[in-house]
Amino acid sequence: MRATAKAHTNIALIKYWGKRNEQLILPTNNSLSITLDGFYTETTVHFKENLTEDIFILNDEIISGVPYNQVTTYLNLFRNYVQRPTLYAEVNSINKVPTAAGFASSASGFAALAAASARALNLQLSDKELSRFMRRGSGSACRSIYGGFVEWEKGSKEDGSDSYAIQIAPQDHWDVRVAAVVLNAKEKDLSSRKGMKRTVDTSIFYDAWLQNVPKDLQEIKEGIHARNFEKVGSIAEANCMKMHATTLGAFPAFTYWQNVTMDVMQTIWQLRSNGILAYFTIDAGPNVKVLYLPRDEEDVLKTLRNIDGVSEVIVSKVGEGISYL
Amino acid sequence: MRATAKAHTNIALIKYWGKRNEQLILPTNNSLSITLDGFYTETTVHFKENLTEDIFILNDEIISGVPYNQVTTYLNLFRNYVQRPTLYAEVNSINKVPTAAGFASSASGFAALAAASARALNLQLSDKELSRFMRRGSGSACRSIYGGFVEWEKGSKEDGSDSYAIQIAPQDHWDVRVAAVVLNAKEKDLSSRKGMKRTVDTSIFYDAWLQNVPKDLQEIKEGIHARNFEKVGSIAEANCMKMHATTLGAFPAFTYWQNVTMDVMQTIWQLRSNGILAYFTIDAGPNVKVLYLPRDEEDVLKTLRNIDGVSEVIVSKVGEGISYL
Repeated sequence: MRATAKAHTNIALIKYWGKRNEQLILPTNNSLSITLDGFYTETTVHFKENLTEDIFILNDEIISGVPYNQVTTYLNLFRNYVQRPTLYAEVNSINKVPTAAGFASSASGFAALAAASARALNLQLSDKELSRFMRRGSGSACRSIYGGFVEWEKGSKEDGSDSYAIQIAPQDHWDVRVAAVVLNAKEKDLSSRKGMKRTVDTSIFYDAWLQNVPKDLQEIKEGIHARNFEKVGSIAEANCMKMHATTLGAFPAFTYWQNVTMDVMQTIWQLRSNGILAYFTIDAGPNVKVLYLPRDEEDVLKTLRNIDGVSEVIVSKVGEGISYL
Repeated sequence: MRATAKAHTNIALIKYWGKRNEQLILPTNNSLSITLDGFYTETTVHFKENLTEDIFILNDEIISGVPYNQVTTYLNLFRNYVQRPTLYAEVNSINKVPTAAGFASSASGFAALAAASARALNLQLSDKELSRFMRRGSGSACRSIYGGFVEWEKGSKEDGSDSYAIQIAPQDHWDVRVAAVVLNAKEKDLSSRKGMKRTVDTSIFYDAWLQNVPKDLQEIKEGIHARNFEKVGSIAEANCMKMHATTLGAFPAFTYWQNVTMDVMQTIWQLRSNGILAYFTIDAGPNVKVLYLPRDEEDVLKTLRNIDGVSEVIVSKVGEGISYL
């Protein structure tokens, strides 16, 4: 009853932005991501007969409070699945996703936790079943089951049984790069969960966002299959702009952008006007991720590292899906 | 055939954002502004029988090129109106609207030019007729005919005859203040005219913007009549956010914001969380205008002047409409 899984985080090019069911974590729109090899979580789950509660160790520290509660609540899904409500586990995680990088460590975290738990219990789940389990921990986690380019099908069923990830193209399909641009910025005021909910509930632009996603998805998938970087980059950047527009139409209006966020965006536009194909995407926080091709790596990184207020630029290649150690 | 008029600029609380007719300058939505006493243009128009072309002097300099062509094209409207196609004028303007302040000097400029031209020709126009003439020079100019709080009725007729300004409340109705926060920023890349057109033509959010304006207008007018500053400020700020959201949904997406724009916005939110009622609005450029009450003037100005990247903060009270000198 012991297994170790490794999951990489992912960055959405078509954003997950809104839930139709908060409890089951069912989204209002399909999303599409690249799995990143630079950022991952490695988790060992060891179910033990003699434990009276779960133990959660993260980066060699025993964890209590909210993160502990999230893990133990999540493990209840597996305990219920095997009808062993008092089968507790020792969970040991190594997280190689710097929180400051603005990547959702919850994506790789819950993907690794789900995979290790299922394997420890010898559940023999299909990919669809496992992706659905990951989704229940954190929506974007369900995409980390696969490497390469991954789409999360929103599904339409109320029980969420048709809401899981599918692979669009494998890791070795295309060598694109993602630079995580970490800003000297304070923590975000509004969590992505709360910002998403306020937007769904109040933004005058939310319907238009939803209506537009299928078109962006269709076109970016064409671009990925054809390895058309200009097409993929420009659709991803435009989709990010539209997601952030919805927050400006919420009530009260808000934004995740900060001063240096704007500087990075303008720097990318400047790079493109100089003929270097680089595109940005931004999640629910101030940091920026930049997409580019290997041939432009030196120029892009040098330019990004020269921006005042940028503390770090971390490069990632396209990563692989879940693996077991 | 000589007259001098003085017109103040205005700042929109409900934004004019899109034309339904580019030639006649007919807007897609009603807008609402405060006339500002701090910024104005004083223009003398002298029609002379013996001139062979118009002469345009601005701040004691003889002007040629694009600004000259705009003035002379505009004067054709009056020449056609009086059926004197070769009656040229000497136009002498003093502009007290620093271009850097990000106020449309075109608003006070064309309002003063229209009023002086009409008076010089002894046209005896009604306010509606004069406001319509102002509109043909620059849309927002039509609001500068009145002091206080002014609405521009979009109208529905194709010839624009029902598209003019009406006064919502006079200058002495309410003492609110506007601080123009001037940034150390470079000139905007995209003119408001071009940005507006790209948004109307391509933004996925433009329909939602249009549908929302009547509600914002109705509520802000209630707030103005009741002198409810929190209501007026929060609607104005939200309307500005929605206008800027539409640019993020255009293709290609764009924004008028820059790094310090974000800092000023966040500073205003910080002020409010400290109990000081201040609200921002932003037009098609990086500068910010801040609305506040006289009682908070010292706190607001001190805070704004302390922001890195702010070069100047210029205060204005509610101004009066057209006057003749």
